[in-house]
Amino acid sequence: MTRKTRLLTRSLTVFMALATLQAAVPQQASPPMLGFTAESGARQLELERRFDSYLDAGNLEQWMRYITSKPVYTGSPHNRETALWMVEQFRSWGFETRLDEYQVLFPTPRIRQLELVSPTRYTARLREPTLPGDATSGIEEDRLPTYNAYSADGDVTAELVYVNYGIPSDYEELERRGIDVEGKIVIARYGGSWRGIKPKVAYEHGAIGCIIYSDPRDDGYFQGDVYPDGPYRMEHGVQRGAVQDMPLYPGDPLTPFVGATPDAQRYTVEEAPTIMKIPVLPISYADALPLLEAMAGPVAPASWRGGLPITYHIGPGPATVRLHVEFNWDLVPAYDVIAVMQGSDFPDEWVVRGNHRDGWAMGAADPTSGMVALLEEARAVGELARTGWRPKRTIVYTGWDAEEPGLLGSTEWAEHHRDELHEKAVLYLNSDGNGRGFLNAGGSHSLERVFNEVAKEVQDPQTGVSVWERSRARRAVSGAPEAQGDGDLRISPLGSGSDYTPFLQHLGITTLNIGFGGENGGGSYHSQFDSFDHYTRFGDPGFRYGVALAQVAGRLVLRFADADVLPMRMANYVTTVERYLGEVEELADDMREETERHNRLVEMDAFRLQADPTETYVPPTAEDVVPFFNFAPVQNALASLERASTDLDRTLADGLQSGSLTPARLAEINGILQEVEQALTDEEGLPGRPWFRHMIYAPGFYTGYGVKTLPGIREAIEQREWDLVDPEMAKIAAALARVTELLRRATGGMVS
Amino acid sequence: MTRKTRLLTRSLTVFMALATLQAAVPQQASPPMLGFTAESGARQLELERRFDSYLDAGNLEQWMRYITSKPVYTGSPHNRETALWMVEQFRSWGFETRLDEYQVLFPTPRIRQLELVSPTRYTARLREPTLPGDATSGIEEDRLPTYNAYSADGDVTAELVYVNYGIPSDYEELERRGIDVEGKIVIARYGGSWRGIKPKVAYEHGAIGCIIYSDPRDDGYFQGDVYPDGPYRMEHGVQRGAVQDMPLYPGDPLTPFVGATPDAQRYTVEEAPTIMKIPVLPISYADALPLLEAMAGPVAPASWRGGLPITYHIGPGPATVRLHVEFNWDLVPAYDVIAVMQGSDFPDEWVVRGNHRDGWAMGAADPTSGMVALLEEARAVGELARTGWRPKRTIVYTGWDAEEPGLLGSTEWAEHHRDELHEKAVLYLNSDGNGRGFLNAGGSHSLERVFNEVAKEVQDPQTGVSVWERSRARRAVSGAPEAQGDGDLRISPLGSGSDYTPFLQHLGITTLNIGFGGENGGGSYHSQFDSFDHYTRFGDPGFRYGVALAQVAGRLVLRFADADVLPMRMANYVTTVERYLGEVEELADDMREETERHNRLVEMDAFRLQADPTETYVPPTAEDVVPFFNFAPVQNALASLERASTDLDRTLADGLQSGSLTPARLAEINGILQEVEQALTDEEGLPGRPWFRHMIYAPGFYTGYGVKTLPGIREAIEQREWDLVDPEMAKIAAALARVTELLRRATGGMVS
Repeated sequence: MTRKTRLLTRSLTVFMALATLQAAVPQQASPPMLGFTAESGARQLELERRFDSYLDAGNLEQWMRYITSKPVYTGSPHNRETALWMVEQFRSWGFETRLDEYQVLFPTPRIRQLELVSPTRYTARLREPTLPGDATSGIEEDRLPTYNAYSADGDVTAELVYVNYGIPSDYEELERRGIDVEGKIVIARYGGSWRGIKPKVAYEHGAIGCIIYSDPRDDGYFQGDVYPDGPYRMEHGVQRGAVQDMPLYPGDPLTPFVGATPDAQRYTVEEAPTIMKIPVLPISYADALPLLEAMAGPVAPASWRGGLPITYHIGPGPATVRLHVEFNWDLVPAYDVIAVMQGSDFPDEWVVRGNHRDGWAMGAADPTSGMVALLEEARAVGELARTGWRPKRTIVYTGWDAEEPGLLGSTEWAEHHRDELHEKAVLYLNSDGNGRGFLNAGGSHSLERVFNEVAKEVQDPQTGVSVWERSRARRAVSGAPEAQGDGDLRISPLGSGSDYTPFLQHLGITTLNIGFGGENGGGSYHSQFDSFDHYTRFGDPGFRYGVALAQVAGRLVLRFADADVLPMRMANYVTTVERYLGEVEELADDMREETERHNRLVEMDAFRLQADPTETYVPPTAEDVVPFFNFAPVQNALASLERASTDLDRTLADGLQSGSLTPARLAEINGILQEVEQALTDEEGLPGRPWFRHMIYAPGFYTGYGVKTLPGIREAIEQREWDLVDPEMAKIAAALARVTELLRRATGGMVS
Repeated sequence: MTRKTRLLTRSLTVFMALATLQAAVPQQASPPMLGFTAESGARQLELERRFDSYLDAGNLEQWMRYITSKPVYTGSPHNRETALWMVEQFRSWGFETRLDEYQVLFPTPRIRQLELVSPTRYTARLREPTLPGDATSGIEEDRLPTYNAYSADGDVTAELVYVNYGIPSDYEELERRGIDVEGKIVIARYGGSWRGIKPKVAYEHGAIGCIIYSDPRDDGYFQGDVYPDGPYRMEHGVQRGAVQDMPLYPGDPLTPFVGATPDAQRYTVEEAPTIMKIPVLPISYADALPLLEAMAGPVAPASWRGGLPITYHIGPGPATVRLHVEFNWDLVPAYDVIAVMQGSDFPDEWVVRGNHRDGWAMGAADPTSGMVALLEEARAVGELARTGWRPKRTIVYTGWDAEEPGLLGSTEWAEHHRDELHEKAVLYLNSDGNGRGFLNAGGSHSLERVFNEVAKEVQDPQTGVSVWERSRARRAVSGAPEAQGDGDLRISPLGSGSDYTPFLQHLGITTLNIGFGGENGGGSYHSQFDSFDHYTRFGDPGFRYGVALAQVAGRLVLRFADADVLPMRMANYVTTVERYLGEVEELADDMREETERHNRLVEMDAFRLQADPTETYVPPTAEDVVPFFNFAPVQNALASLERASTDLDRTLADGLQSGSLTPARLAEINGILQEVEQALTDEEGLPGRPWFRHMIYAPGFYTGYGVKTLPGIREAIEQREWDLVDPEMAKIAAALARVTELLRRATGGMVS
């Protein structure tokens, strides 16, 4: 029965996809702009052409040169300098601008020591060298050493165990080999999940320390020529980064749910649930090599082996290391730049546009490449305003601080302004690092259509076709079915990893995250070498994709600011959630079959008999069978939502075409559309992590950045917590029902 | 319609597989031995138990120590010594024994030089070192240097191009990047195909030289600890090997189709079509590193990158090398050891059992591990004969010379004795290197059932269960559907790579190739380190799997020697060919869909638009569409064969159970079964390579060792030679019809 329903859902999805394709055909001739009348749409196109004419790549280059001249991490002098400078810039462009300050926990290292103490000795270098051709690589003033923020203090000595990426499935492999990390120090390579998952899972398994290194296979010479010859990570390059338990909640570890104002109630460091309980240190592959080379024990499985010229062994030991790290556990100020241009007609409807402005070192690609595009975009909006135009809705440009340590600037601001945002925000549009290549987008699926419309109007700087067409070509060649025709290109669901998270997953603001990339491969991420020199050679020479980002983002901001009806299209949301539901049903069926197969093999004793008797092997045991689940509540809710969304889309299209929607009706509809994404959040949040409230999108509890769609039921099934499925199913169904109710209200209650 | 037929074929296959499973259930209680009556089967089991009791692992160890004490390659003094010694051994065990001598072309190197001449200089070492703990690694007397036999003489200097595995699809990648190997020297890594394919394809593309190296990812430290710490290839280890165009024909390049007797008509070296036209040299990864490191040009695609600590570049150049090789183009004697025990009842029905006895250096694993098991098996058969037992059919034990340079000893013998073998051979049973682990088998699918029966009666030395059960466990865990129950485990189709090829694919003798392995990983293949020391540490310590091989092979020989009806079961052959046909139909359908998809992308200009404009990229052009093919001739032939085989199996089972088959009928039936495999050969052979006559199994024209089943139609489709499909389809259908006709005659012509 489940399978049948799944097939039905699939047919529906296919049908909707086809409908989308067909609907697109007449649009090619004379595309109506979503949310605008023919007349207001034509005016908007004209406005956007003027907007484009103001953009100047030279500004991006000049600003990046200034911002990346000194270390720009949270709490650094240059971080404050550049914040004040941005305030001045925004003001000069006509924005009401302020610095919003929060007091956040940002540990910096006092002691960092890593030594191989036996069977041979080696002291880790833990320092990135000065390189010819990279002007800021040798900078000493305010240099931030390589470390993982929110590691515990600790001084531990133990044998090493190599745990591959250090994710849960890796520990299953260790179990098969009878290897326990209890009391050991694990060494994991970067990749396979967000970095914070590695020490968390290691700690859950009893490890007392965690070393994370960049393997050259994933992030070094295997990928391409290393810096400064090429863009990839050189042997001493280190990936800094935060390792708090972000899937629980991001932001300041001491102040979940509330803004980190001076008088906020705070956890102590010891109490803070997201701070790691064991010491963690990131190292380069040059530092990892002597450690891994000194290991013995079983040879690592083929998929665990990296690019170093050694045989990878799992251990434990004999390599024994001493890991000693201590930190200054200081509260430091995080400065969010907030620049506002009041809306003429709907000042209490906010279009919020953000990018972070702090980096780990020089921060050229991450985040300055995106930040300078945002600045240029804001400057051009200011130019428009100078000509007499005013946005109908209020535009809020932001430059977040303290994103790198865990989305602190944006999270504290979002938590602090929760009520206002719930009431007023119609869009949060995010960007972060930007590079040469293809336009990508992720976010609320109500934005899929407007994103496609905008992408068709911006020209790819290298090929002259639209950025939409170039993106479609790439997806078509890689086999994406929707890219074979002229239908909407899909946007991705969002997990975490940038400042959209508090807006989308905590507050339920309609959110989009955009950026270019794919042809700017490299390994400067979170290293001293993420510099102006690196970026202008390998990231986006000439800042042509920086300008393209400003064009895409600027259009989205202007459309949301001026639209008659907020340019959201619920049909895309519905088909997307139907697709996710189909995936979860398939997941359950696949797990059920796989469990049956597994248990049959256990019964046959096949696992033991296929193993090499000369090696330690602990055969897996039988698994609990996967029950059948009741997907009907969500299926029914989706069926209702589909009808309501079709009715609303038709009502809006007709109304805009005929001019029959009064200003009052328009205001009412926009008020309702503003609430749609919030209706998809649940007050209780997800199981065990109430901060994450969105019922459709969440970062995975064991992936960190990687998204889990319909997370309540998907993670319950993946983690075999069968009892959670029914209640989470009910929460999702209720959320969808709330949206249906809103859409019916917007349509005018005429439709059943 | 094609798809429908395919589904039908599949259902039939599933049905047959189920039938096989069900048929197996009652057999568990009291399994009838295929080809025997209840009474003769019981006697046979008793005989096999006695056979087992004679086997002594100590002999295998002692003999291997002697054989591997000096280099044993074709033409070496110790090769002749050990041949004469084997003759003495067989004689002492009661076999009529002789040495059959052929004069074969076996080039050995006079000059081997490889130098990087720019931009830096490096002279390749081309020599494997003396290693502590490997007693024969430093041997100087009669040492055979590292080289590829049947390379052309040549002295060439040119830029290098890295071509990955050097197979046709790699050259498509080069084409996308606008890189031509015309006038260049290619450097390819071992793997992905048989080595001889690499210089052949390089030459087809205009290259003037070919270097082949062992990359540590495929064959070195990436796989595990290197010798002498572990079994894997150390940095200076080199894989020797022949590189003539074996998919055209194996054996002496000067005498295709005929035995290389002193007076045979011979090609000159210049005329011989299988000798490479460009110089070829194999090198170690230590010698490859400076060459690859000196290359520039585009970074190699991810799947091309190996395990060296460098960024892999394609070139061309700037690395420029001089490759200079010259050879002694000598005819040398190849000595085949032939030991015969005459059959008491059917002396003109031959059970031929073979293994080669020549190696590239010391030849411990390859081939002595298999050869000493064969010797011990023959000794035990001799012991049985000493007790008064005589085989009903003639048993012929063979030790082939000159397998390494290209199956010369076996091929010349098979060609020389073509008529006798066509008339008399009922089985060719081959083995080659043997190791610790799991029993594998490949060959004529009429032997699937008897192989399964035998495998159930031999105990795995490490676990105590049968070797069948252990093999099933491994296959079950890896997901093989047939291994989930108690049905017959499938045997593989045979391509090439050992001495079965002339028997099966040229003469059409019913053939099986068997061996143990999978737990003896290592990298001694064709190196100086394939030694007694290496093998007894890492290959099969205690020679327990050598004894198990003798048990399996001995049983098969004894059953074929004594069976009332030759133990072949055609039902397995039919279901297998049905499966292959299904695969070819699917291949055509998939290629058709893939071509349509490809051409749509070409039309959209998607290939050009998805490429990085800063890199050279030549978009692919449209492909000719894949027509629909007429599979009916083979489908109809299979349907008839299926009926005939069912009838025959029933007739034989009933006849053996009731005792109703007279000796004359039995002789008639056996005479017919002896011809079945020959009926599957075609006088014309395969397109462009008439030496390969089997219509069901062949080595791939561009894989070398890798099998292509139904090769006539499969390769015609793969290589887009549509016009070949119909005629090849007809040849296959005719071959199957010949078998049907034979089976009907055997059944007694009673069935339509």
